[in-house]
Amino acid sequence: MIYADNAATTKIDQEVLDSMLNYLKGDYGNSSSPHLFGRKAKEALLKARETIAKIINCAPNEIFFTSGGSESITQAILSAASWGENHNKKHIISSSIEHPAVLNTLLSLEENGFKIDLVKPNNRGIVDYKKIESLINNDTALVSIMYANNEIGTIQPIQEIGCICRKKGVLFHSDCVQAISHLDIDVNRDNLDMISFSAHKFHGPKGIGILYCKKTFALTPLIYGGAQERGKRGGTENIASIVAMAKALEIQSNNLIENELKIKRIRDFLENKLLTIEDSHINGDRQSRLSSIINIRFDKVEAETLLLLLDKKNIYVSTGSACSSGSIEPSHVLMNLDLSKEEANCSIRISLSKYNSDEEVATIFSEIKEIVNYIRSFN
Amino acid sequence: MIYADNAATTKIDQEVLDSMLNYLKGDYGNSSSPHLFGRKAKEALLKARETIAKIINCAPNEIFFTSGGSESITQAILSAASWGENHNKKHIISSSIEHPAVLNTLLSLEENGFKIDLVKPNNRGIVDYKKIESLINNDTALVSIMYANNEIGTIQPIQEIGCICRKKGVLFHSDCVQAISHLDIDVNRDNLDMISFSAHKFHGPKGIGILYCKKTFALTPLIYGGAQERGKRGGTENIASIVAMAKALEIQSNNLIENELKIKRIRDFLENKLLTIEDSHINGDRQSRLSSIINIRFDKVEAETLLLLLDKKNIYVSTGSACSSGSIEPSHVLMNLDLSKEEANCSIRISLSKYNSDEEVATIFSEIKEIVNYIRSFN
Repeated sequence: MIYADNAATTKIDQEVLDSMLNYLKGDYGNSSSPHLFGRKAKEALLKARETIAKIINCAPNEIFFTSGGSESITQAILSAASWGENHNKKHIISSSIEHPAVLNTLLSLEENGFKIDLVKPNNRGIVDYKKIESLINNDTALVSIMYANNEIGTIQPIQEIGCICRKKGVLFHSDCVQAISHLDIDVNRDNLDMISFSAHKFHGPKGIGILYCKKTFALTPLIYGGAQERGKRGGTENIASIVAMAKALEIQSNNLIENELKIKRIRDFLENKLLTIEDSHINGDRQSRLSSIINIRFDKVEAETLLLLLDKKNIYVSTGSACSSGSIEPSHVLMNLDLSKEEANCSIRISLSKYNSDEEVATIFSEIKEIVNYIRSFN
Repeated sequence: MIYADNAATTKIDQEVLDSMLNYLKGDYGNSSSPHLFGRKAKEALLKARETIAKIINCAPNEIFFTSGGSESITQAILSAASWGENHNKKHIISSSIEHPAVLNTLLSLEENGFKIDLVKPNNRGIVDYKKIESLINNDTALVSIMYANNEIGTIQPIQEIGCICRKKGVLFHSDCVQAISHLDIDVNRDNLDMISFSAHKFHGPKGIGILYCKKTFALTPLIYGGAQERGKRGGTENIASIVAMAKALEIQSNNLIENELKIKRIRDFLENKLLTIEDSHINGDRQSRLSSIINIRFDKVEAETLLLLLDKKNIYVSTGSACSSGSIEPSHVLMNLDLSKEEANCSIRISLSKYNSDEEVATIFSEIKEIVNYIRSFN
C-alpha cells in the first residue's frame, strides 16, 4: 500500500513505540501514587514536559497534557471566553477556514451571546493580518488563527498576528495541529499565548495532545478531576502516550530540516508531474504552504470516484472536504477560496511524510494519470 | 516488587496489549478517512462499541468513547446541568464521598447558581437511598452516586436509587470507575441513565474511557470537533486504546466470577491476618464492598511512615487519602465516616487484582506486621 494521507494521521515511529511500551508493559504506575512505582511515572511525566517545553521554547509549567488537538482547542477557546465574560469582552476573531474543532467551539459561544468574526482568507487561502487588526476592538477577548491549514496547507502570518495581538492586549491562540509536524514553532518568537496540537500528526500515538498556555493566563478546567496538571486538567495521566509524544516531537525536531527537504523534494516532483495532466489546478497558495500537502483538482473528475479507484490500487489519499461526517457538502475551506461547488468536489488532498519514497510518488502520479484519463473517457 | 495499588491503576493484560499493538503498528488509519485504511479503523471502532454495549447491556449508539473517567464524569454532569438549566431545574443530589471529578464538577456548577446536596453516608460508608429520595424535588435535574467507592470500596444501593430516580423522572448518573473492574454492571437492570468508567482500572490502557448515555437523553459536547461520536465528542478516535479497552472488558467479563472468587479469597485471608495485629480496624462496610479493597488503620501508626517503609521493601500500597495533590489534608472519604483526623491519617488502602498471589499477600502481611511493630516501638 501507499499511504499519502498523513494530514489525517501518521505511522508511529518504531522508537516512539518502544518508548511507549516501556510504560505500557513495565512502569505502569499512576503518577499520583506516592510509592516508587508512582514516582517513576511522575519522573517520566516531568521529563516529557521538559522535552516538549524546550522544543517549543516555553517553561515546563506552561505545558498541559490533554487527549488531543480538539480537547486543547476547546479548552483554549473556552478559557479565553470565560476570561472575556468576566471582563466584559465578548468578541472573538478567527478565520473562516479553521478546523471544525475551532468553528464548532465558536458556534457554541455565539449561541451564548458572543460576537464571532470569521475573517475570510484571500482566494489562495491566506488570511490578511491587517483585516484582523482592523476588527480588534475593546470588546475583543481572543484571536484564534490556525498556524497552517489542514486541507490546503497554507501557512498564516502568525508572527504578524501575534505582534498585533500583543500590542493590543488581546489573547492569541493558534491551532498548530498541522504546523507542528513540519515547522519549527517557537511560542516566544511567534508571540503565541496558547497553542494546541496532537501527537498522531507527527508519528506519535493518537489520543494525546498539548495545550501550551503562557503562565500569565489562567486556564479554566474543561475536564474536572484531581490535582493533575496543576488542577487545570483532571484524569490519570496517560504516561505511556505522554512519553511517546515527547519522543516523537524530539525526533521530529532533531530531523526537521533533513525531513522537510526530502518531503518538499518529493512533493514538488509529484506536484509538477500532476500539473502536466490536462486541466489540473493547485488549490491554495503554493509559496506559504506546508511542504507535505498537495491539494489539486482535475476538472470534470469527481474526487470521490478518483479516490475510490485509487483505493482499489491501495493508494490512500483524501478528498479536500472533511468526509468524516459522510457529508456530501463541499469542503468549507475550498468554498472559501471562491471555488465553485463542482471545483471543490473535484479536489483531492495528497499529504506526504518522511516515510514516503521517490518510488511511491512516481506510482501515485502514474496511477492518478491513468485513472483521470479513464474517468474523463466517460465524459 | 508487590503491586497492591490496583484501585489507582492496573497492569495491562498481555492479550490487551497485543490487540492494541495491531492498531499502533499496523492499521493506524484515521477512522474518518474514506479509504480502506480508514474503513479498517472504523470497523474496529464499531466492533469495540458493540462488544462493550453487549457487556453493560445497552445499544452500541449509547456508548461514547472519551479519554477516561474524569472526562466522562464531567460531560455527564455538565450535560445534565445544561438540560436542567433549560428546564429550570437547578438542583443536583450527590454524595459527600464521591471522587474529586464529581465533587469539583459540582463545585463549578454551584458557583453558577446550582443548588448541590451532598448526602453523607453512614459511618460505614453506605449512602441511604431514602435520604436521596427525600431530597428529590421538582427542581432536581440529576442524582449522581458512585457505584463503589475508590478508597474504602463500599458498594452503594444503586438499583434502589435507580428505581427512585426513574419513578421521579430524575436523571441518574453513576461513576462506575471502580465498580466496573469487579462487578457485573447492567445499565438496564440498574436503572442507570449515564455511567462513566475508564479502561486502566481493569487491565486496559490509560487515557481511554466510556460514557454510556441512554438514547433518550442528548449529551452536550464537552470537546468540540468533527462529527466523531455522533457529534458529541470531537477528536480523532484513539482506535488502538478503544480496541484494547473492549478487549480488556471482554476478558474481565468472561472471567468475572473466577477472578472475583480468587481476589476475595486472598483479600479475606490478608484482612483477617492484618486484623490479628493489635489495635487495627477496617474502615468502611465489610459486607457491601468490592472484593479487592482493604482500607485499614493501625492506631498510632502514621500511614505516610508505614507506606515509606513498605516502599523500601518494594511493596506498593496507598494511603486512604488522595495524595495526588501532595496534600496533607486527611481523606474526605474517611472524614465522612466520622473518623478523627488522626484515625484517617493512620489508614492505608491495599487494593488487589487477579495478578496478586497467595505468596504476595502473605508477604504483605508479614512486612506490615513487622513495620507496624517497629513504628510502635518508638511510641
